[in-house]
Amino acid sequence: MPMKEIRENTLYVDGVSALDLVEDYGTPLYVLSKTAIEERIGELRTSFLDKYPKTRVAYAAKAFMCKAMVQIIEEEGLGLDVVSGGELYTAMAMDFPPERIEFNGNNKSYEELAMAIDYGVGRIIIDGMGELDKIEALCQEKNKKAQVLYRISPGISNIKTHKYMSTGMADSKFGIPLEEGILQGALERAIQSDHVDFYGFHFHVGSQLLDNQSHLEGLGVILDLVEEVYKKFGHRIREINLGGGFGVHYTHQDRPPFAYFLDPLMAMIGKRYDIMGLERPQVVIEPGRSLVAEAGLTLYRVGDIKKIPGIRTYVSVDGGMTDNIRPALYQAEYTGLLANRAQEEEEAPFTIAGKCCESGDILIKDLALPTPKEGDLLAVLSTGAYGYSMASNYNRLPTAPVVLVSRGKSQVMVQGQTYEDLIRNDREVQLK
Amino acid sequence: MPMKEIRENTLYVDGVSALDLVEDYGTPLYVLSKTAIEERIGELRTSFLDKYPKTRVAYAAKAFMCKAMVQIIEEEGLGLDVVSGGELYTAMAMDFPPERIEFNGNNKSYEELAMAIDYGVGRIIIDGMGELDKIEALCQEKNKKAQVLYRISPGISNIKTHKYMSTGMADSKFGIPLEEGILQGALERAIQSDHVDFYGFHFHVGSQLLDNQSHLEGLGVILDLVEEVYKKFGHRIREINLGGGFGVHYTHQDRPPFAYFLDPLMAMIGKRYDIMGLERPQVVIEPGRSLVAEAGLTLYRVGDIKKIPGIRTYVSVDGGMTDNIRPALYQAEYTGLLANRAQEEEEAPFTIAGKCCESGDILIKDLALPTPKEGDLLAVLSTGAYGYSMASNYNRLPTAPVVLVSRGKSQVMVQGQTYEDLIRNDREVQLK
Repeated sequence: MPMKEIRENTLYVDGVSALDLVEDYGTPLYVLSKTAIEERIGELRTSFLDKYPKTRVAYAAKAFMCKAMVQIIEEEGLGLDVVSGGELYTAMAMDFPPERIEFNGNNKSYEELAMAIDYGVGRIIIDGMGELDKIEALCQEKNKKAQVLYRISPGISNIKTHKYMSTGMADSKFGIPLEEGILQGALERAIQSDHVDFYGFHFHVGSQLLDNQSHLEGLGVILDLVEEVYKKFGHRIREINLGGGFGVHYTHQDRPPFAYFLDPLMAMIGKRYDIMGLERPQVVIEPGRSLVAEAGLTLYRVGDIKKIPGIRTYVSVDGGMTDNIRPALYQAEYTGLLANRAQEEEEAPFTIAGKCCESGDILIKDLALPTPKEGDLLAVLSTGAYGYSMASNYNRLPTAPVVLVSRGKSQVMVQGQTYEDLIRNDREVQLK
Repeated sequence: MPMKEIRENTLYVDGVSALDLVEDYGTPLYVLSKTAIEERIGELRTSFLDKYPKTRVAYAAKAFMCKAMVQIIEEEGLGLDVVSGGELYTAMAMDFPPERIEFNGNNKSYEELAMAIDYGVGRIIIDGMGELDKIEALCQEKNKKAQVLYRISPGISNIKTHKYMSTGMADSKFGIPLEEGILQGALERAIQSDHVDFYGFHFHVGSQLLDNQSHLEGLGVILDLVEEVYKKFGHRIREINLGGGFGVHYTHQDRPPFAYFLDPLMAMIGKRYDIMGLERPQVVIEPGRSLVAEAGLTLYRVGDIKKIPGIRTYVSVDGGMTDNIRPALYQAEYTGLLANRAQEEEEAPFTIAGKCCESGDILIKDLALPTPKEGDLLAVLSTGAYGYSMASNYNRLPTAPVVLVSRGKSQVMVQGQTYEDLIRNDREVQLK
C-alpha cells in the first residue's frame, strides 16, 4: 500500500481517501502513514541493524511523539531518544522498556534526572559537567549506577543546513567542548566514578543534512578522542552514538538512503578500532525526522482566496503557523496538491496563507496548482516531523488531530483540541 | 506600586518579591503586573478616550488572552479585538459584552462567523469578498444585521518593522486591495446590502512600530477612500479603525507615548472630515502588545553553565523557545537581570540558552550579568505579549503558569500544564 496514490482525481494516503479522512476527522488534519514509517524502519533494518552487529536505533521522539507513536516504536523494537521529563513521561505512560531509552538534552533538571534514574533508562547522554554532579549525587542517594555517554561538541564548521539546525560547531550550547582543560578532567572523573558507567561518546552535527560530509568530519574528531582516551587511560570506548540529522525530501532534493550516511561511518569506525587493535564498539543512531517526516501530510480546507492583480493570489487555509511553524521559523519549503482535484492540471502559482493574524503565516510561496476554489482540500506534504510537535495555540486556534492510516484504515493518535481545552487551565481572578 | 523595583538585591514585581513568586509557583513563570496594565490603559484614557469624543479602544487579544485577561479588559471598560473562534469562545466564557467585540481575521470560517453573529459581536471586520457572502447568507438565515467594516490593504511601503510584522504593503494576505475593479463593486455591495450595516474602514500597517510615519501614510490612503466613497455614493464613512502596531520597549528604543501616534492621526481625520463638511467618524484603535508587553516578565531558573574558552559562556535556563519563540522567529531582542542578585555588578556578557534540543533556542545573546551560578533566577523583561500566546509543547515541555501580581499580591491567571495534560489528548491505537 503506497504512502500516496491518486485514484479518480483524489489523493489516497496509505489506502484511505483524503475525502473520507476529512469527513471523519475535519480539517486541519495531520495524517501519518504507518506503512511509510514501517518502510523507513525496514530500510534501517536492512542497511544498518541487520547489516552491522552491535548497532541500535533510538527514535528521536522530539520529531513527533504521542502515546501511539511510542507503541509503534516499541512494536518495531527500536529505542527512544527523549529530551525532557515530558517525553520520558509519555514513554513511561506506555511502559516503554526503560533500557531502550536514551536521555538527551542540554539542561536536564535534577527532577528529570531523578525520573530517568528511577525508571532505569538505558543511557543518559551527559551534556555538561554540572550534569555529572547531579547524576552522581542521585546515584549515590539511590544506590544505583547510571550508564552514561558524554556528548561532545566536535567543533566542525560549514555544516550545510539552517543555522538553527546546526549543532556541531564549536560555538554551540550543546556538548562538552574539545578543550584540553575541560575534557581531561571530565574523562578522568567519568572513568573513575563509582556512580556512573562511562560507555563513550555522543555527537550530533545538525539536522536535515543531505550531504554526509559533516557526519564524517564529526566522527573523525570523535575517533581521535577514542584513541586519545585509550592511550592516556587505557580505557576502551565501548559505544559511539552518531546522533541523527539524516535529511528528508521536502521539495527539491531527494532523501539520500540511510546507507549513504551509515556505510562510510561504519567503515571509519571499523577501520580505526581495527588499527588500534580494539574490539569494535556499539554504534547507536538517533533518527527522528527521517523516520516520520515523509510519512506525514497535512490536510487543509481552502477558505478565502484573494487575488491581488499584478502581484499574487493568496489562498488561505484553515491552519497555518499554529500547526506548522517551520516555514516561518526556518524558511522551510514545502510542496502540496489539491487532494480533491489531484489529477487536474496546474494552472498558475498560488501562495498558501495560514489563518493566523500575522504576515509571516505563509505556508508555501508560489505553489503550482489548478486554480483553487473555496472548499477545496489542500494537502501539504512531508509534515510528519516537527509539525504537531511544535504546534501552538497562537490566536487561540485549537491543535489539529493526528490520524494514523494503515492499509486502508484510520485511527486517531491524538485527539484534536476543543475550544473547552483552550480554557481548561485558565483561572478567574479577584480584581479588587 | 511600580512594575519593577529592587529591594535588598532582589527584584520585586508590582510589590511581590521574585523569590516568593518562584517559591509559590515554580519556574519558568510568566508574571504580569496588573498595575502596569492599568497604567497603560490610563495613558490611553488620558491621551485618547477622554481627549477625543467618539473613540473606542479594543484590546487585541492575540497578544495575550485568558479568562482573567478578559476580566481585566471588561473591568477597564475597553473592547476586545478577537481573531478566531477560540478567542471569541474565551470572551463568551466570561460573558464579555458582545457589542464591545471586534472580529478580525483573514480567513474566518463559516462556523466562526455564525458564532460571532449569534453572539451579536459589535463589529465584523471583513477581510475579503468571500467573507461578505458568508455574512450575508448567515444574516439572511438568522434574520439579523451585522455591523461591518472593510479591512483595506493600504499598499504602503517601507514599513519599519520585521517583515513578518508588516501588514500594510500591497503584497499582503490581509485586507481588500486598492484595486478599482475590486473595491468599486465591494463598496456598492456593502452600502446597498440588506444584511450588513457598513460602518467604514479598518487598516493595520504592522506591529511594533516606533515611528508614526506608516500609520500616517496608511491613514492618508484611507481618508482618500473616505472622500471617494462620499463623492461617488454620497455615503458618509462613520467609522475608521486605525488598527494597532504601537511599539514598546524591548532593549534599546523607548516606547513612544500613545499621543505620538494618536494626536497627528486624530488631527488628520478631523481636518479631512471638516473640509468635506462631514460629521466626524468614530475612531477605533486595537492595541495589544502596547498594553501588556512591558507589564510582563518571565522568571527562569539557571541550570547548566557552559564556558567555551575564547568563544562564549552559555547559561541554560529551564524554559526557552517553548515559552518565548520571538527570539528564534523574529530575531527579537530582550534584556534581563538576575532577580536574586539584582544589585550586583555586571561582570561579562553571557548567552542565555533555552532548554530545547535545538540550536535556535537562544533567548538572549550577550546579556551583561554578574557571573551567573546554577540556581540563580533570571528575569527576562517585556515578555507580556506574544510569549504565552505563542507557547508550544515542543520537546513535550509543559507550558508555564501565568501569574497576575497587583500591589503586593499574586494570583494564578493560567495554571501551568502538568505532564498529565501533555498526554490528555493522546489515544492508544490498535497496531494489528
